[in-house]
Amino acid sequence: MLKLYYSPGACALASHIALEEAHADYELVRIDLSKGEQKTPEYLAVNPAGVTPALVSDDGVLTENLAIMWYAAATHPDAGLLPPDDAPFELARMLRVNGFLASALHPAIGKVLFARPPLEGEARAQALEPALAKYDIVEHHLLKGPWVLGERYTVADGYLSVFSRWLRLADLLDPDRFPKLNAHLTLVQSRPCVQKALHMEGLHPA
Amino acid sequence: MLKLYYSPGACALASHIALEEAHADYELVRIDLSKGEQKTPEYLAVNPAGVTPALVSDDGVLTENLAIMWYAAATHPDAGLLPPDDAPFELARMLRVNGFLASALHPAIGKVLFARPPLEGEARAQALEPALAKYDIVEHHLLKGPWVLGERYTVADGYLSVFSRWLRLADLLDPDRFPKLNAHLTLVQSRPCVQKALHMEGLHPA
Ligand SMILES: N[C@@H](CCC(=O)N[C@@H](CS)C(=O)NCC(=O)O)C(=O)O
Ligand SMILES: N[C@@H](CCC(=O)N[C@@H](CS)C(=O)NCC(=O)O)C(=O)O
Repeated sequence: MLKLYYSPGACALASHIALEEAHADYELVRIDLSKGEQKTPEYLAVNPAGVTPALVSDDGVLTENLAIMWYAAATHPDAGLLPPDDAPFELARMLRVNGFLASALHPAIGKVLFARPPLEGEARAQALEPALAKYDIVEHHLLKGPWVLGERYTVADGYLSVFSRWLRLADLLDPDRFPKLNAHLTLVQSRPCVQKALHMEGLHPA
Repeated sequence: MLKLYYSPGACALASHIALEEAHADYELVRIDLSKGEQKTPEYLAVNPAGVTPALVSDDGVLTENLAIMWYAAATHPDAGLLPPDDAPFELARMLRVNGFLASALHPAIGKVLFARPPLEGEARAQALEPALAKYDIVEHHLLKGPWVLGERYTVADGYLSVFSRWLRLADLLDPDRFPKLNAHLTLVQSRPCVQKALHMEGLHPA
């Protein structure tokens, strides 16, 4: 059985949503980031990078949301969470979005919202604008609509929703600046599997 | 025909190596980062994120090394640059490594080596240790050896080699601390396709 190490509401929610949407057989292990549980020797033996998520499978451990999500989708093809095999450009486009979220958007917004000690005043304002500029790129260039790739839901949708959710909870998902991201988040949150994943983490739709 | 926008020696070298190893039909377009050519309106129309690489194909534009590399490999299956289709865990492992390099290692070492204005003294030392700690994770946990996934060369090897190359050129790829990364870089650089890609960018093996 698969075991997902997650922290409520953190980026592991993307992998959690993917497992739910895949109808995978999995259990959750909660890691409390505020208590530093991601840096205990026990957890570092699972993920030496000391971050969540991590997925333990019979074949070994996976980390990185984009790898875990792809694996959940690829091993549960009936759920149709990836573009079809004969559409490599579409899968590459999905990886592009996931790669951008992981390498550019997540670090930028993470710094604004979760830096320890927290950023305040001028320092926060200075970090916020480049972070919002990454969301602009998704709004204007990467999110085709209604789903990230257009007509088909893929794991990139669950992933993007985590970051739009953070922004909406911080009252920063301005409907004038980010109309497509707002509509997308609402649409993703209407999915029963997403609601179930949120509920399992003790969360509500944003 | 494919068109790769690259900057000599920068991370686009990973996508360039993947295209060479795939025996793809492509041409190169050079973007001079020191002249800010990645922020011109012409280039922003290709990649609104204003970074290299970008790959223009008949189907549209791709960005993000991990997406471009996967696409080059998947559309040239004879080159055998991916784990086989019936080994989803292995492909997920490759995505894990690529995701870690893109989201954790690259930003950390990029700050040390390429920040503008350059980091100096105490500030550089403070950024260097966490960056080297990411290389430690690759050395001890992600690089199976001789190749990243073990016996099979994949696009993750070309990608990793770019970052080990930067470290060796900066005299920081300490053979005592990073014996596996040193052996891996030397092995990758022994490949004719890698040598050709370096040569096309006006570079030498490190
Ligand atoms: N690129 C990684 C990022 C993982 C990550 O940064 N996770 C955060 C939560 S959103 C974390 O565990 N942070 C704890 C820490 O840095 O100590 C992924 O997508 O899996
Ligand atoms: N996650 C991106 C990173 C791209 C990136 O940061 N490229 C750098 C070169 S190594 C760049 O173009 N920097 C120019 C700039 O930031 O202005 C990828 O893997 O493609």
